[in-house]
Amino acid sequence: MELSDRQEQIIEIVKPNGPITGEKIAEKLGLTRATLRPDLAILTMAGILEARPRVGYFFTGKTGSELLTENIKKLKVQDYQQIPVAIREDASVYDAITSMFLEDVGTLFVVDEQSCLTGVLSRKDLLRASLGQQHLSGVPVHIIMTRMPNITVCRKNDSLIEAAQKLINKQIDGLPVVKDTEAGLEVIGRITKTSMTKALVELTMDERFD
Amino acid sequence: MELSDRQEQIIEIVKPNGPITGEKIAEKLGLTRATLRPDLAILTMAGILEARPRVGYFFTGKTGSELLTENIKKLKVQDYQQIPVAIREDASVYDAITSMFLEDVGTLFVVDEQSCLTGVLSRKDLLRASLGQQHLSGVPVHIIMTRMPNITVCRKNDSLIEAAQKLINKQIDGLPVVKDTEAGLEVIGRITKTSMTKALVELTMDERFD
Repeated sequence: MELSDRQEQIIEIVKPNGPITGEKIAEKLGLTRATLRPDLAILTMAGILEARPRVGYFFTGKTGSELLTENIKKLKVQDYQQIPVAIREDASVYDAITSMFLEDVGTLFVVDEQSCLTGVLSRKDLLRASLGQQHLSGVPVHIIMTRMPNITVCRKNDSLIEAAQKLINKQIDGLPVVKDTEAGLEVIGRITKTSMTKALVELTMDERFD
Repeated sequence: MELSDRQEQIIEIVKPNGPITGEKIAEKLGLTRATLRPDLAILTMAGILEARPRVGYFFTGKTGSELLTENIKKLKVQDYQQIPVAIREDASVYDAITSMFLEDVGTLFVVDEQSCLTGVLSRKDLLRASLGQQHLSGVPVHIIMTRMPNITVCRKNDSLIEAAQKLINKQIDGLPVVKDTEAGLEVIGRITKTSMTKALVELTMDERFD
């Protein structure tokens, strides 16, 4: 939404002076109240100003882009999560590398006998291990994996942006989407920088906010 | 921007019937032209309808979210690119893995003596090579790299979304940002799924569209 110069002027007047009546805004601009009516209606309906009867106009603190980003913040992990790929703790590093290629994923989850999350393996972990060791089939993954409680997780109802921030802050490529069970954390999905790249592209392609 | 029910109704009337006068729209809704004036002003200023004098209102084909996503499409590669990490063609796979860890990147660019792009190495390429070979310091990277013309590149003025689509379509983690020179393609930047994840987060944090 592109605001006109006059609408921008109105916002600048209301910001420091609100609550302020339409009459006073018109006065400051040297215009009539009737001339401003459509502009005030637009700014109010766009959520930028708020009108209270017998009080006047407030600035809501929300700009056009903030209203857009409120919509982006509503995106959920569950709408973007992919199928997780898990292996057992006693699998070898060689098995893990093979799974990573077969399933074409960048992050593997390690689970115990109750299928509960105990570790995470990234391509970087496996590359580091493969440098140091000659006998990858003799090394179990639990030796090299990142283990609980150092694993960053997310849940299906978390916002996508919250998950993206975890990926950036922790400098990791993927997160397990987990469900709490009595035995521990069950892995129900995987969310990665690929999910985020797809989400960014989709924002420009579809009409999910209409 | 949230549209009111009446504004939605107006759009539904104009879509199949445009060009249509404000008078006719009012008639179809059983309302007066004056009542509709603010709604029509909002829809026009928001870019959803277009008004042509003595002709009437058209539907522009642009919904609120489409107008907002047009802003996302204006983001440029140059605003998100990171510093590229390059190695020479005669460097060994061992050197490449070491660089990848030292510089903490997921994609390395391979350049010739004129510093022109000849290849790309991903973590996946290096992991694959490390599985097959025991003597990584004896294997030059040009044996395992993806080479021109199979390298997908982007340029600094490309839209970020276009670059994101290349990452998704080609199933790769990073792209070189290149500049055309007489000797070939000079690598001036790197754009990755991490850049895209950061862009998605930033969309919800700052006021770049104001």
